[in-house]
Amino acid sequence: MKASILTVGDEILIGQIVDTNSSYIAQRLGEQGLSICEMRSVGDTREAITGALNELFAASGIVVITGGLGPTKDDITKQTLAAYFGATRMALHEPTLRHVTELLGRRGIALGELNRNQALIPDACEALLNLAGTAPGMWFEKAGKLAVSLPGVPHEMEYLMANEVIPRLKKRFSLGKVYHKHIATAGIAESTLAETIAAWESVLPDYLRLAYLPSPAGVKLRLSCYAADAHTSVADEVEKIYLRQLQALIPAYIVGYDGDTLESAVGRLLKARGATLATAESCTGGRIAALITAQPGASAYFKGGIVAYSNELKVKELGVSPSDIERHGAVSQAVVEQMAQGAQRALQAEYAVATSGIAGPDGGTPEKPVGTVWIATATPDKVTSRKLNLGNDRERTILRTSYGVLNLLRLALTDDNNAR
Amino acid sequence: MKASILTVGDEILIGQIVDTNSSYIAQRLGEQGLSICEMRSVGDTREAITGALNELFAASGIVVITGGLGPTKDDITKQTLAAYFGATRMALHEPTLRHVTELLGRRGIALGELNRNQALIPDACEALLNLAGTAPGMWFEKAGKLAVSLPGVPHEMEYLMANEVIPRLKKRFSLGKVYHKHIATAGIAESTLAETIAAWESVLPDYLRLAYLPSPAGVKLRLSCYAADAHTSVADEVEKIYLRQLQALIPAYIVGYDGDTLESAVGRLLKARGATLATAESCTGGRIAALITAQPGASAYFKGGIVAYSNELKVKELGVSPSDIERHGAVSQAVVEQMAQGAQRALQAEYAVATSGIAGPDGGTPEKPVGTVWIATATPDKVTSRKLNLGNDRERTILRTSYGVLNLLRLALTDDNNAR
Repeated sequence: MKASILTVGDEILIGQIVDTNSSYIAQRLGEQGLSICEMRSVGDTREAITGALNELFAASGIVVITGGLGPTKDDITKQTLAAYFGATRMALHEPTLRHVTELLGRRGIALGELNRNQALIPDACEALLNLAGTAPGMWFEKAGKLAVSLPGVPHEMEYLMANEVIPRLKKRFSLGKVYHKHIATAGIAESTLAETIAAWESVLPDYLRLAYLPSPAGVKLRLSCYAADAHTSVADEVEKIYLRQLQALIPAYIVGYDGDTLESAVGRLLKARGATLATAESCTGGRIAALITAQPGASAYFKGGIVAYSNELKVKELGVSPSDIERHGAVSQAVVEQMAQGAQRALQAEYAVATSGIAGPDGGTPEKPVGTVWIATATPDKVTSRKLNLGNDRERTILRTSYGVLNLLRLALTDDNNAR
Repeated sequence: MKASILTVGDEILIGQIVDTNSSYIAQRLGEQGLSICEMRSVGDTREAITGALNELFAASGIVVITGGLGPTKDDITKQTLAAYFGATRMALHEPTLRHVTELLGRRGIALGELNRNQALIPDACEALLNLAGTAPGMWFEKAGKLAVSLPGVPHEMEYLMANEVIPRLKKRFSLGKVYHKHIATAGIAESTLAETIAAWESVLPDYLRLAYLPSPAGVKLRLSCYAADAHTSVADEVEKIYLRQLQALIPAYIVGYDGDTLESAVGRLLKARGATLATAESCTGGRIAALITAQPGASAYFKGGIVAYSNELKVKELGVSPSDIERHGAVSQAVVEQMAQGAQRALQAEYAVATSGIAGPDGGTPEKPVGTVWIATATPDKVTSRKLNLGNDRERTILRTSYGVLNLLRLALTDDNNAR
């Protein structure tokens, strides 16, 4: 069964907003065995929406639409869908009106005209009560075409997908399954990885498809099988044969599987050891701590961190030697190693990571150009540091430094956990 | 002149990766007066790419394509475009071969077969040398159709857009202009904002189009004028009439204009005052520091921060009273205010922000459910705190808390700067 995703909004087309909804929806539909044949974004005009629906319904029976349901003038998705599916009038959706009145009441706001209009729904659809916001979703179904319209605000869309759309899709269709296995790697470039596993890749069976998915955290590999009924035995075969072969080929680079990330792998390793972590960040400015604490349950192993953006704080909070800063500069092996050890000591953690670098665009010198970064990890036994050269994209340098030192920590933890 | 954007990759369709390239490309093309009529994502098959090109060229003369140029087997964009534009053979692009050899050499890697293939380019296109990576871009032009193919890795695509694509587009077309004015607001809900400015909105002239763009940082308003030639006078009229009216209507909610964000506005206000900032974060776990330091030049006003995830560190590093933690809990007005003052003191900054809350999914109680958050700012004169109730989406709670306290700081700084 094929589906497609349509995003409506001028703000998408002018690049004001990155469309994160489509990937979320694709993941949820994919888990149900629905395969997405296309994603599309069009502007807030009747012609663009209608034209896209015509083309998308030619290739797929289901179109999930986000955006254009707000209370304001520029939002026209509701009227356009009403016309497309031949609605004769707008009807008041009582549960939505009650919910919106109650929601605004809790915030001390009286129900205005704009929000009252959100409870008006074309009679050609079923309303999907949106308990996460004010605009209800809509389920239009006619002549083999199913259109589901959801608000563009991500957490409202997510609420409706989980609580209204997926349960209805399950009831409405008998869905097959798609099998995906993800293998997260870190510390190896895409082309090196491809050459290292070329022989393994070349003997994969026809029903398995391999993809390389690079990101600042590392390259993910994805093995997919779209043969719906073979699901159980495929999973088994992948686990027992192909993953074992892969593990033997690139043991040090595999971070984990499926939902695993560098952050979650580090968390798991720390928990297995009953150990705690602290961070000392200069150029990454809190990004590593933010990545770690984005994980639910991080408080079990994360003590905290110090963002020592100024040299003064590197000395005062982390005990870095002022003369080493003077002699080697803040971006140096001596300083980053002292930062890691200082965080271990000050925050009373067994493990620590530290970063010091020139993220740019200013601050580079001929000897230390923008993108020069030192990273370090401190374990109960030793300190390890590396120099990175990351170029002149500030955001990318911050991310690659953060993932680089998390991978250094993962390797140290793997060694330590193996040595126990 | 109309353009469209095509993203190629199964990883997009299964939701593995969020497509951030399209919004970047749309912004850059928009600045040149090219308007994007559609964005589309399709899978790594010849049929899908060819079908999309046919439909997109029916509506726009320019299609910018990203993805599918990697060295690995699943990448087929190059061959598909070669066939689409009638290439007769693949030709070696010497500058790319030299560049790739040199790039790998610096990393101590010998040139492999996969990377050598990246220098082979269809003879129907012009190669765009990619100094940020290994896969060159390609410029195909034939019978009024222009296709530009770029790698999917964001920083490589960005390099080629800035250094190869935009300069060529400028030379090739005489481009009109589109006028956009963005007004960033914070601390006001979309529907309240719409009702507050309804009268102003209703008398905007026909050539101005208003859009509401909500995000966790606040609602952005965008005024657009697509009448190419009126550009200069429109800008003037918007500045002198409509923005002044808007400023009078919602003075406290306007954060800034165009590229301005809460983070940049706070930075500007601190710099204007010659003041410094420190952060003390619990539930936001470093996110605020990361937002602040994502700004180039943040070291001029940001001293640093303490991520005090454990109560122990709140006491030790920030001087929070252990008996107040005992009596009121870590998520309380007393504790968050002491955290802000502690950061001011420990990190020697004039201003500080602090957060303490229950981001979830665990840790809630009947009196303090998940989503309960306290935020505080400390200025040289006073401490201000607020309680927020943000629901049970961890990531959203972290973001809304971060932006909430940055807005509290912005208001405090605006007051202080006005009072001088």
